[in-house]
Amino acid sequence: MLSKNQKKLIASMAQKKHRDSQHLFLAEGPKTVTDLLESGIEPSLIVHTQEWKLPSSCITDSNILFPVSQKDLASTSLLKTPQQVLALFKQPQHSVNNNAIYKELTLVLDGIQDPGNMGTIIRLADWFGINQIICSIDTVDIFNPKVVQATMGAVARIKIHYTNLPEFFQQYHEKCDNPIYGTYLEGDNIYKTSLISPSLIVMGNEGRGIRDENKNYIRHKITIPTFPADSQTSESLNVGVATAIVCSEFRRSTTYSR
Amino acid sequence: MLSKNQKKLIASMAQKKHRDSQHLFLAEGPKTVTDLLESGIEPSLIVHTQEWKLPSSCITDSNILFPVSQKDLASTSLLKTPQQVLALFKQPQHSVNNNAIYKELTLVLDGIQDPGNMGTIIRLADWFGINQIICSIDTVDIFNPKVVQATMGAVARIKIHYTNLPEFFQQYHEKCDNPIYGTYLEGDNIYKTSLISPSLIVMGNEGRGIRDENKNYIRHKITIPTFPADSQTSESLNVGVATAIVCSEFRRSTTYSR
Repeated sequence: MLSKNQKKLIASMAQKKHRDSQHLFLAEGPKTVTDLLESGIEPSLIVHTQEWKLPSSCITDSNILFPVSQKDLASTSLLKTPQQVLALFKQPQHSVNNNAIYKELTLVLDGIQDPGNMGTIIRLADWFGINQIICSIDTVDIFNPKVVQATMGAVARIKIHYTNLPEFFQQYHEKCDNPIYGTYLEGDNIYKTSLISPSLIVMGNEGRGIRDENKNYIRHKITIPTFPADSQTSESLNVGVATAIVCSEFRRSTTYSR
Repeated sequence: MLSKNQKKLIASMAQKKHRDSQHLFLAEGPKTVTDLLESGIEPSLIVHTQEWKLPSSCITDSNILFPVSQKDLASTSLLKTPQQVLALFKQPQHSVNNNAIYKELTLVLDGIQDPGNMGTIIRLADWFGINQIICSIDTVDIFNPKVVQATMGAVARIKIHYTNLPEFFQQYHEKCDNPIYGTYLEGDNIYKTSLISPSLIVMGNEGRGIRDENKNYIRHKITIPTFPADSQTSESLNVGVATAIVCSEFRRSTTYSR
């Protein structure tokens, strides 16, 4: 049976300070939990109804499994309509691999706030073989339960670091000559620009874009043009969608057009 | 003051049958309402607190404006945390323009269910100059309040039709020789395929993809490859993100690489 302290621990996962101090995060629902288990992230507690079955490919110490009634699951879950299972996982610990960053295409996020966008971007990185993401300190936490929901197993494969961006850019400039690209509403047409990898691609906050303190480091401003080029359209593309197009275009142009 | 019947009418907008019988839809929040007003969609009722101001560029019959208290706005809104304004708008009426469809790049949606994805796709169509979207009957309603929230003014510019897809494909095949592309997890690498426009691009449902009854009409199966090509990654791309990449690639390859 789940103890009072375990229930408290689960409830505390809504807050970053508790996730950080415990080095844990919460995942809910069969799809997310199964995907994380299969990705090899270590669970520390799995609370489930009898409907849910541990995937046969995953072996787990049976004393971290807590079968409960639907009612008990509901009283433990942070969701309005909990489904079958929730689990605490240990936060994967990564350190920045600077040598790899200098040799690979890397994403940099300047203050992304929306958990759904963050989840989309992590899955895109996973799809397009971008192994590391550098985030400003104020970017939404990847262990926020809503980000976990949107990201699923990709969080096991992508290394994500939070750091002071101007210092990171300064160091990058000193250590290598790779270009730093930033996406803007007004910049060079991405389809007509020669895109180079290894490099950095900087994506800005949903409302204010890329911060002034980071702009000086960006020598290559790129933009996704509308079609036709001067048409009156939606004022901007959502940052998740823009990241999709930019990553696709980097991989296409450096892989297939040479 | 807002009458009981007007409040009832607003509440009824949660349901498609009432939206359809009244030819109205509901939009909430200053950004969405202002964007729709500026797009030229005709409002039939605007309920707002004193915080909200009619944009100076929009002239509206003052007897459709209903200033209310925050409390009254809250009791009228369908949202948990209503902000400043909600409005009923007349549904824009479009008929399918087949002649245009045969001459343009057109999106076809086979059972998209998620309102956020639908909103993303409509904004992408707007960005990439795709004027018409053909949807299967069971695709989420564009006047669903959550789709309206995600789409904003783009709904004024894009013509969206709901129809029987096999019949539509049959007619398209009979009337023109344009290719019909479908996106699949296993198909030809989109970056290595010669993409032709005018044509149709079919995007499938979030879970089951493109329905069997439509597959026969699709001669060109395309896929967005992972990078590197055989890597283990997220199991699939979200349909909004996939649509972004596909539309971008169609516009790039038919516009910039000739």
